[in-house]
Amino acid sequence: MDIEKVNSMDFGEFVDVFGNVIERCPLIAAAVWSQRPFSDVEDLEKHFFDFIDALPQSGQEGILRCHPDLAGRELQRGTLTAESQREQSGAGLTSLRADERLQLAELNAQYRARFGFPFVLAARLRGRAAVPRELARRLQCPPPQELRTALDEVKKIGRLRLADLFGAHPAGL
Amino acid sequence: MDIEKVNSMDFGEFVDVFGNVIERCPLIAAAVWSQRPFSDVEDLEKHFFDFIDALPQSGQEGILRCHPDLAGRELQRGTLTAESQREQSGAGLTSLRADERLQLAELNAQYRARFGFPFVLAARLRGRAAVPRELARRLQCPPPQELRTALDEVKKIGRLRLADLFGAHPAGL
Repeated sequence: MDIEKVNSMDFGEFVDVFGNVIERCPLIAAAVWSQRPFSDVEDLEKHFFDFIDALPQSGQEGILRCHPDLAGRELQRGTLTAESQREQSGAGLTSLRADERLQLAELNAQYRARFGFPFVLAARLRGRAAVPRELARRLQCPPPQELRTALDEVKKIGRLRLADLFGAHPAGL
Repeated sequence: MDIEKVNSMDFGEFVDVFGNVIERCPLIAAAVWSQRPFSDVEDLEKHFFDFIDALPQSGQEGILRCHPDLAGRELQRGTLTAESQREQSGAGLTSLRADERLQLAELNAQYRARFGFPFVLAARLRGRAAVPRELARRLQCPPPQELRTALDEVKKIGRLRLADLFGAHPAGL
């Protein structure tokens, strides 16, 4: 895919292709379409990120709440989005031992209770051993800092998903 | 369901129940959870509407772009959300004649081309005969006025969906 192709899409095609760049938030892709034409993939990405940054805090928390737990119930039930399924598989989260799954479930529950949104991590960049370590570390962070960290992870995930769609290797991660 | 029950929900339950009050925009329900507790259903509704009103224009257009056409491809393919399916059926849009479907498809296409979002109407409140008439009328409206009209319809749909969830009859529609 190249940017001319993207700029020629009507909003239906655009939302079909980019609707899950931000997990389960097709509203954001649908809003970004208003900003076309895009000069390149970085410009397209910037409009996704600018939209996120301009939301009130409740909206930013809302984005996070649309994300599934890592190695959670949705993975067990097979109800993840295709992108999440690939990412959680790629990070080795589909082949955890029962005790590892239990440990993560407990940490995820503590995290959700503390912050009011699920633990979000660009798992593809880390791997399975890092997930409980990062989770335990971030559980200790002050809420305002943790909200920023979590949104940065949303953006890393979005950047990787855009790179997949464009068949490119993203820089600066 | 009563408001105490709603106020006791964690964000996962809340998004499961209210995630499609605004069609395919679970982000909005997920954001509204930040505003709990709610005093009653009107208060809950107000937070949905306030979130919509506070979005930049691109975000408001984005909400509209997450809606399906009336009597469109998604109805034919059976890929509507459960709520949309019920509403379009209830308005008689599943039993159109071929010539009526074709007429609506043409009007929908003209509308999408003119405004950059699909025609949204709280069809349950109108019925099948009113749909092409309203579509033809609104096609002539200036874009800024039409954006406001379409968002008002999104809110009417949301109010009816909330009323369904609470088992109540909404006032003021």
